[in-house]
Amino acid sequence: MAHEPNNWGRFGLDDQRGTLNLLTPAVVLDALRSATTGEVLSLAMPIRGATSSPAPTTVPHLPGRPLPQHFMSVDGGDYAAGARPIGEGLRVADDALVVTHHGTTTHMDALCHMWSGDELYNGHPAARVRSYGATRCGIEHVGGVVARGVLFDVARHLGLDHLPADFRIPAELLQEIAEPGPGDVAVIRTGWPLVWQRSHEEYWSGQPGLSAEAGRWLAAHDVSVVASDNAAIGGLDARGLADEGLADDLHLILLHRHGIHLVEMLWLEELGERGRTEFVFVAAPLRIEGGTGSPITPLAIL
Amino acid sequence: MAHEPNNWGRFGLDDQRGTLNLLTPAVVLDALRSATTGEVLSLAMPIRGATSSPAPTTVPHLPGRPLPQHFMSVDGGDYAAGARPIGEGLRVADDALVVTHHGTTTHMDALCHMWSGDELYNGHPAARVRSYGATRCGIEHVGGVVARGVLFDVARHLGLDHLPADFRIPAELLQEIAEPGPGDVAVIRTGWPLVWQRSHEEYWSGQPGLSAEAGRWLAAHDVSVVASDNAAIGGLDARGLADEGLADDLHLILLHRHGIHLVEMLWLEELGERGRTEFVFVAAPLRIEGGTGSPITPLAIL
Amino acid sequence: MAHEPNNWGRFGLDDQRGTLNLLTPAVVLDALRSATTGEVLSLAMPIRGATSSPAPTTVPHLPGRPLPQHFMSVDGGDYAAGARPIGEGLRVADDALVVTHHGTTTHMDALCHMWSGDELYNGHPAARVRSYGATRCGIEHVGGVVARGVLFDVARHLGLDHLPADFRIPAELLQEIAEPGPGDVAVIRTGWPLVWQRSHEEYWSGQPGLSAEAGRWLAAHDVSVVASDNAAIGGLDARGLADEGLADDLHLILLHRHGIHLVEMLWLEELGERGRTEFVFVAAPLRIEGGTGSPITPLAIL
Amino acid sequence: MAHEPNNWGRFGLDDQRGTLNLLTPAVVLDALRSATTGEVLSLAMPIRGATSSPAPTTVPHLPGRPLPQHFMSVDGGDYAAGARPIGEGLRVADDALVVTHHGTTTHMDALCHMWSGDELYNGHPAARVRSYGATRCGIEHVGGVVARGVLFDVARHLGLDHLPADFRIPAELLQEIAEPGPGDVAVIRTGWPLVWQRSHEEYWSGQPGLSAEAGRWLAAHDVSVVASDNAAIGGLDARGLADEGLADDLHLILLHRHGIHLVEMLWLEELGERGRTEFVFVAAPLRIEGGTGSPITPLAIL
Repeated sequence: MAHEPNNWGRFGLDDQRGTLNLLTPAVVLDALRSATTGEVLSLAMPIRGATSSPAPTTVPHLPGRPLPQHFMSVDGGDYAAGARPIGEGLRVADDALVVTHHGTTTHMDALCHMWSGDELYNGHPAARVRSYGATRCGIEHVGGVVARGVLFDVARHLGLDHLPADFRIPAELLQEIAEPGPGDVAVIRTGWPLVWQRSHEEYWSGQPGLSAEAGRWLAAHDVSVVASDNAAIGGLDARGLADEGLADDLHLILLHRHGIHLVEMLWLEELGERGRTEFVFVAAPLRIEGGTGSPITPLAIL
Repeated sequence: MAHEPNNWGRFGLDDQRGTLNLLTPAVVLDALRSATTGEVLSLAMPIRGATSSPAPTTVPHLPGRPLPQHFMSVDGGDYAAGARPIGEGLRVADDALVVTHHGTTTHMDALCHMWSGDELYNGHPAARVRSYGATRCGIEHVGGVVARGVLFDVARHLGLDHLPADFRIPAELLQEIAEPGPGDVAVIRTGWPLVWQRSHEEYWSGQPGLSAEAGRWLAAHDVSVVASDNAAIGGLDARGLADEGLADDLHLILLHRHGIHLVEMLWLEELGERGRTEFVFVAAPLRIEGGTGSPITPLAIL
Repeated sequence: MAHEPNNWGRFGLDDQRGTLNLLTPAVVLDALRSATTGEVLSLAMPIRGATSSPAPTTVPHLPGRPLPQHFMSVDGGDYAAGARPIGEGLRVADDALVVTHHGTTTHMDALCHMWSGDELYNGHPAARVRSYGATRCGIEHVGGVVARGVLFDVARHLGLDHLPADFRIPAELLQEIAEPGPGDVAVIRTGWPLVWQRSHEEYWSGQPGLSAEAGRWLAAHDVSVVASDNAAIGGLDARGLADEGLADDLHLILLHRHGIHLVEMLWLEELGERGRTEFVFVAAPLRIEGGTGSPITPLAIL
Repeated sequence: MAHEPNNWGRFGLDDQRGTLNLLTPAVVLDALRSATTGEVLSLAMPIRGATSSPAPTTVPHLPGRPLPQHFMSVDGGDYAAGARPIGEGLRVADDALVVTHHGTTTHMDALCHMWSGDELYNGHPAARVRSYGATRCGIEHVGGVVARGVLFDVARHLGLDHLPADFRIPAELLQEIAEPGPGDVAVIRTGWPLVWQRSHEEYWSGQPGLSAEAGRWLAAHDVSVVASDNAAIGGLDARGLADEGLADDLHLILLHRHGIHLVEMLWLEELGERGRTEFVFVAAPLRIEGGTGSPITPLAIL
């Protein structure tokens, strides 16, 4: 089933108002049948950070982005130093998070995240994306994603630890691995996060990703979400930029023209080791009204 | 099956390292059978906020807590004002979130969030909860929660829109509604968020919640998570505090003594209307290393 | 000397690039002569805040604004809890600040903070004020302010602790107190912050401030800055808004039409007690590129 | 006059409560006499930053520190995109700042910033520095600094653009340039920020700074503040650390043992060009209660 680009009503999206799933109940019920062992894996990278700690630099991220900051507003150290407990003796630790998820951690992109011209996905005016948040196509419209996940472990398929930085995955390679159905979440494993531990510079020297043709192939299969362990679904060049033209830009093909949400910077190593192509994929972005995306912890139910 | 308090290995918790589910695969597989229609509901309240907008005050929260702040670092307004697109014409909207989830939005508490004395759940030293985050019992140890959810719609059971502020739910009332099994997520609906729209002052005048006895009853049934639409699982008095003694404090009973995670400030109105007692409950906290909790969007798969 | 409205070059502003004073050297030298005793007073309210502390609510602020958040990323409590010192034994406390200064603390407004139509002060296009910051009229253009301060202690002049909420200070009253010269900083004391301690509700019930006529009188005297202990220079009504029309709006009269910077939410109680009308006023905003303002600690050198 | 180390009452510090100057009125009056031309220079580096902008990386900073983030919560772009003005036509731009000043921008250190053992400056217990902020020796105790500044332009004195990374300034070199008096602010120019524009890697390869002996010489002259354009007053090695032992650590010598506040990461290029050794130094930290320091814009009045 090839779907119409820019068809806002696809998967019931306009009815969601943040409390419904991206997919219809029938698709969900069918997807749940993909669970066979009940093992649940987190597909998220850790979020680290504190003002005076070098910790944030130990997690893969794009250069130049503000890294997550995590603060404790009260903690066990305070009680060790003599802080008075609450009431009869209750002690509490509280925290706060400052996060700019694009490029720094596992996250989902909202449909308002990228576009060309003056219109977002499905003709919504880009001028409605303002400082108070997007009043069109914000991340809060994705109540949740419960769908069949299909793993395209391209690196393993080719017998590699990870794809080379300049590798652009052709459609045929995906086709050799699996054939996704409507509503499926296509999960692409490049193995690129493994490079981080070897060398930050190498991680930043470019990234492998989908070719434009592979993006169109996935869109033609009507997947609901494309998810990858790289930072931008498509590849990046040595300057950290997508180097395709507008027609071939992966964000524009998937997010802008077909309304397919993107999940980036996944951690897929345990999932890849399991050798399972099909599973249940679950993700639920924070309900940030007008958000351009959200940090998430996607789950794979095997 | 009554479980041992402070049994660290319960549900395989010590093996998780942030990539495994809170429950064992067999429990998960069984839980998935609770899905019958495939409808998916989000149980999260919206996250709103911007410096000069009154929006944050339109979402229920505890008084005096710093409200979420959501900033756009580039948006459609910038392009309307003449900002140059990227490359051939790519346009992007990016954002950032500052969030202190306890008391301001739907969130899950980590086992390090509350304790008495010098030890966290299961004897871990509270002194390991410091400014760089908790190196024991942080939220990253909850890879995900895929479990059977059992809705205790106490307000509806009593024919009320919402429970009164001073109502402390007795165990018998829970028992009249359902009997949860080991690993289940007990979801308690008080209806209290409905009060917010009528009056912020009334919302802050106290909150209904579980009685200590009901907390013990749930722990004795070995639930994995207790989740509620109120702010503190137990009730709050007019000063916004739990007024039970240490022995009867709901956070101490559940979180501290039994290692039962808590989810607070849920939005349960659509779920309550469906009239379903059993469903699949899915939640995956952000993998914040050392976090005392995480904002989340829990899903109910009906 | 009446100055030309919208004269960008006034006080050498366009030459500053953030490293020069708002006033010319001759005016500065002259201003320094106002110091007679050498006593230095801070005119700033405290900045308080932490996630789980009620502290922020103890400082006057406008309702609905996100309050300052102050986090310690490492502190003495961590060492009390066993954190390892740096090297041979060095210990450190570090912190972080999240601040949205307008309406929450003592701050200076940049010339880009308010306007009507499509042009900022002096005809600069408002479209240059975008998400990356203002490339015209940002706060970084105020290197510093070293000027003669003239205190208009209107409350004391009238024998009042503080002006009533609906009081709009007429020009004649200012004239009775002092006659400012070109480049002077006019400091207006209403005493309104004293109301905060009595009642937050009363503090929010309105605010006294300058009348439009008084604003024009100050502009005609060519002052460089108008500073006040109220929140908006002009008065506020019960809804927290300026209720003058566009022609009479104090921000438009001073900031927009005359390029006179504003300093709001000062703490003037000690200064008022000294009984000095003239002194040296010093303030230096943080050099936030493209900022709409900055939190500051102004000093009065008596 | 050699002053007593750990003499809390020095310069009237314990009486300040955040509203008085670091120095006594007589010292201030005397300092003001150093102004001869009235030129005012800002000594601050710019604060830049936005989520998706590479701007923050264009300002010198220590590696691994979270860089300042500056957000506009409403701006001219929003109006260009059709946002409705306030009332009859008022338009507003508002912003927010997230800043961790140590290591990222021009800032002043509080006396609670560094110590060894269990006591802060003057014997105050380090355990009072907790997550809610320091209740001893916080930055709010520095109401302001109005003092005579003495420029030690060591680079220019040696005929260099900047000192080499491994240069540790000996006391004799300072002595050749000037002899500071009690209460003076010693301003040390190394020229190191100039290296940033040539190469970030070189900037991070180490830093020149004061020798321990020079630190003791300044303390013996009873200066009130030591300020420098490097990041740590003392030098840094290739790993970005001070490599002196505890006895010779510059922060311990000055801040901890003598109660001398530190100002770091100054921009001294214009000041250096003026060729003036004496001037009025003014700085006023934000009144952050319990803060370990504050971003500041120091001014030099020539």
